[in-house]
Amino acid sequence: MSNPSLLILPGDGIGPEVMAEVRKTIDWFGANRGLHFDVSEDLVGGAAYDAHGTPLSDETMAKAHEADAVLLGAVGGPQYDDLDFSLKPERGLLRLRKEMDLYSNLRPAQCFDALADFSSLKKDIVAGLDIMIVRELTSGVYFGEPRGIFEEGNERVGINTQRYTESEIERAARSAFELAMRRNKKVCSMEKANVMESGILWREVVERVSKDYPEVELSHMYADNGAMQLVRAPKQFDVIVTDNLFGDILSDCAAMLTGSLGMLPSASLGAPMANGRPKAMYEPVHGSAPDIAGQGKANPIACILSFAMALRYSFDQGAEADRLEAAVEKVLADGVRTGDLLADAGVQPVSTSEMGDAIIAAL
Amino acid sequence: MSNPSLLILPGDGIGPEVMAEVRKTIDWFGANRGLHFDVSEDLVGGAAYDAHGTPLSDETMAKAHEADAVLLGAVGGPQYDDLDFSLKPERGLLRLRKEMDLYSNLRPAQCFDALADFSSLKKDIVAGLDIMIVRELTSGVYFGEPRGIFEEGNERVGINTQRYTESEIERAARSAFELAMRRNKKVCSMEKANVMESGILWREVVERVSKDYPEVELSHMYADNGAMQLVRAPKQFDVIVTDNLFGDILSDCAAMLTGSLGMLPSASLGAPMANGRPKAMYEPVHGSAPDIAGQGKANPIACILSFAMALRYSFDQGAEADRLEAAVEKVLADGVRTGDLLADAGVQPVSTSEMGDAIIAAL
Ligand SMILES: CC(C)[C@H](C(=O)O)[C@@H](O)C(=O)O
Ligand SMILES: CC(C)[C@H](C(=O)O)[C@@H](O)C(=O)O
Repeated sequence: MSNPSLLILPGDGIGPEVMAEVRKTIDWFGANRGLHFDVSEDLVGGAAYDAHGTPLSDETMAKAHEADAVLLGAVGGPQYDDLDFSLKPERGLLRLRKEMDLYSNLRPAQCFDALADFSSLKKDIVAGLDIMIVRELTSGVYFGEPRGIFEEGNERVGINTQRYTESEIERAARSAFELAMRRNKKVCSMEKANVMESGILWREVVERVSKDYPEVELSHMYADNGAMQLVRAPKQFDVIVTDNLFGDILSDCAAMLTGSLGMLPSASLGAPMANGRPKAMYEPVHGSAPDIAGQGKANPIACILSFAMALRYSFDQGAEADRLEAAVEKVLADGVRTGDLLADAGVQPVSTSEMGDAIIAAL
Repeated sequence: MSNPSLLILPGDGIGPEVMAEVRKTIDWFGANRGLHFDVSEDLVGGAAYDAHGTPLSDETMAKAHEADAVLLGAVGGPQYDDLDFSLKPERGLLRLRKEMDLYSNLRPAQCFDALADFSSLKKDIVAGLDIMIVRELTSGVYFGEPRGIFEEGNERVGINTQRYTESEIERAARSAFELAMRRNKKVCSMEKANVMESGILWREVVERVSKDYPEVELSHMYADNGAMQLVRAPKQFDVIVTDNLFGDILSDCAAMLTGSLGMLPSASLGAPMANGRPKAMYEPVHGSAPDIAGQGKANPIACILSFAMALRYSFDQGAEADRLEAAVEKVLADGVRTGDLLADAGVQPVSTSEMGDAIIAAL
């Protein structure tokens, strides 16, 4: 049997440097745990635009379809701000999500014990926090038509369309309930059903799906109240399920609560392929951080933990994922810190590659 | 000259009880500061539905058009959850905003010194916080057509439309810049221009308006990053301007940072009327809190401070508004607390009307 394949798309900004540390980790699992991957690498985002004039070439798209899992670094940078909408780095990422039909975006918001002090929230509010946000990722206002800037009378109008079919809502909801079954059996669904008809349909379908999971306690919350409750008392949540746009904002809000933005991975999952594995792409929640790119300052942990999620969700290697996550916890407990994790001056930060080496050593 | 007119719409839940305290305050200004208002009262939301089968009658709408300012309590409650969308309490509020064309919603997020400990954020992150969020209130996905739940093939689809014309963006932006000129001369505009064309137009128009305010420093932020930055370091902001839906979520997030949700007022302003005053409605940021309604537990301060905003923005009585705000600060400094402001058991909370009386006494 051939090895499972990994397509690595480092992208822009700090993407390449954090991905270099992921490769070390992948190599370690090959050499020490007999987990071998066929790894290939390609371009996405601004890097792809610079090379090919498009943020994702058709060849790369085809490779992504064939890969057993895709690992993505980050896309975007100020030098691409004035590009036409269709050429912006983000379009490469959105094309991957859409064409691979990665409808379920899992974003854990987890507070690492060693870092609880680093949150802007009081320690007792966030210590031990462990939420999973399931964000619908292939529909909604991100992809709805009509969209664009149109002439109307003597001015222009900007239009986007929020659009959800029952089946789109259903499959996202189902993945949230499945996760909740393996966690604390609580799902909170967030929308604006008091203002938006798409939210009414969302709520109705989530209710219907919940009938198949009688053990899971379901609640509903308006998204504005959801943002408040995340800030007020985030530990009330287990799994949150929400749409593409609300998920974008609420998951970033939740991520920031933990104070560990450089630590948070994500998985974007689609339907099972012929080999039974889900279509999947893994990426850190943080962005391309152009201000520190190329300086060896970036924290590679979010990207390394994204590989841990790949081990768990694509390759059924939950125990190896646990091993990698434990190594990260150990390194943090030992006080190893990249610059983003340092509240106090005085402590010496390690570089991106030193952090990667420390994690390998802990493995 | 006749007295300026105030239309009071207490609404649902705790609305009536907090509004009773506002009426005491209005009376105090009449008796002691020569500020007399012609006050009338009417129904909105579930209360209007119960009486008339509609969340806002045409008669009440007409009175709102004629009033010099409207004070609203809160709308909504679980007993109305199963009503048809068009009859829900929220529709009454949205009709007022839309027909009065109240395009500029000012939501201060201010941290009261006496309450800084009460935030879920660390004290140094929020103490002294004073942000003004300007939320566009009459357009966007709240009102865009087409909207609804439609049949499509053999399933249903929920659709809403995000829609902004240049002139809608321009007038909201202008009101943000005007405010910034009277504050710290910084505006941050938030959208998702990386994903939504309506956000591209938003950014472009805000840029154009900023040319008329060369003293004001303008920045742009994606709304997801905005949510993060609000949690991470809210004091970086002075005025934030954003659309109706992002404004809904981000202003609630910002409100919760202060730990003083029961304290936060809002103003919704439209174009000047014949008498030079803007069309205006004032309301607390908090909702109808059905769980504590009718128990004398609600905090009336947000609603009282909404009247202070009316004094400032509708009646050009900035000094009297300052007086009322100072009275509230004094009462807080004296340790008077409604139940929502109590972190510790042991301290005895005051009732809604005792809080109102304490503020009158401080005046
Ligand atoms: C880069 C951008 C297009 C993207 C999004 O809006 O989805 C990002 O914010 C994210 O959350 O992954
Ligand atoms: C009650 C509801 C319709 C309203 C809104 O969504 O605008 C509320 O959340 C607000 O922010 O004033």
